[in-house]
Amino acid sequence: MVSEDIERLITLLAKLPGLGPRSARRAALNLIKRKETLMQPLAKAMADAAAATKSCSTCGNLDTRDPCKLCHDPRRDDTIICVVEDVADLWALERTSAFRGRYHVLGGTLSALDGVNPQDLKIPELVQRVHAGGVKEVILATNATVDGQTTAHYIADRLEPLGVTVSGLAHGVPVGGELDYLDDGTLSAALKARGPV
Amino acid sequence: MVSEDIERLITLLAKLPGLGPRSARRAALNLIKRKETLMQPLAKAMADAAAATKSCSTCGNLDTRDPCKLCHDPRRDDTIICVVEDVADLWALERTSAFRGRYHVLGGTLSALDGVNPQDLKIPELVQRVHAGGVKEVILATNATVDGQTTAHYIADRLEPLGVTVSGLAHGVPVGGELDYLDDGTLSAALKARGPV
Repeated sequence: MVSEDIERLITLLAKLPGLGPRSARRAALNLIKRKETLMQPLAKAMADAAAATKSCSTCGNLDTRDPCKLCHDPRRDDTIICVVEDVADLWALERTSAFRGRYHVLGGTLSALDGVNPQDLKIPELVQRVHAGGVKEVILATNATVDGQTTAHYIADRLEPLGVTVSGLAHGVPVGGELDYLDDGTLSAALKARGPV
Repeated sequence: MVSEDIERLITLLAKLPGLGPRSARRAALNLIKRKETLMQPLAKAMADAAAATKSCSTCGNLDTRDPCKLCHDPRRDDTIICVVEDVADLWALERTSAFRGRYHVLGGTLSALDGVNPQDLKIPELVQRVHAGGVKEVILATNATVDGQTTAHYIADRLEPLGVTVSGLAHGVPVGGELDYLDDGTLSAALKARGPV
């Protein structure tokens, strides 16, 4: 029914997270309708990004240069490393502008079920970075899920002999959050960690 | 924070229908991670489709050739034209394989509010196609919305003097639908149009 060119475009678009076959069709039609303003620039942006982006050999961030912009920036604090699961988490933290140290992207979490071992993540590289010296604190900013916390505990154990401060993100009520909608675990954590107003 | 290449990719992805800024970021990361298997093929598919697709000058369908595959197919029935609002509707009808005639894509609906006049749609072209002869029936398959039905009525009026049969899609209970979840309008239409079992 549909020409092979368009069919192939739809099939590939449907592989993106968040797009199913139906929304991929809608996206493809939209692209074709906005050929000059959207489709050609997007095709070019993809080809450019595919050619230019690489994984930073120090922290694992994605950038067009290696070491990445964050590892290269001389104004950032070398003594503190924030450990995240994924590049998306690094971007989320960077959007807050609340952290001015270095990062370390693990590339996932330990998982006995999925057979993910410490060697599959960038844990040896992290230990090596800390071992090389100059690092005073490691913030374990893995997700607050079972896998994320297991990974954090494993890393804390590995870093303990190196004499570095190991910290984790605080648990509590999200800013703007309503108590009524919060789960019991978050609420009791917030209560336990209460502080002066 | 993020390199300009990736930032531009995210901005463009966020313009796709169904993707917001957050899911565009997720899609961009996913694309970068699957560079060879997804990103490069998708960039190529987009460039190919952008270069190859054109609007059929007869029916308005999108295809790599003009007249399109559907207008060109000699096995399809020339005496019956199905009028749809959009290419997406044409594709939806084609997926059913229930219609073997020709199509006519209007490119939208009449709308006094948005200032869409008959000249902005392909209505004159439709009248001309019918006027040229050989057409026995026109099926008005516009959406069952107020704008869609207004447009259908307008077209029916325009086609009336040409002595062609003008029909519309049946209203009723969707196949697999539950009465309890149907709106009153659909239910009463289904009741009114009841037939022998």
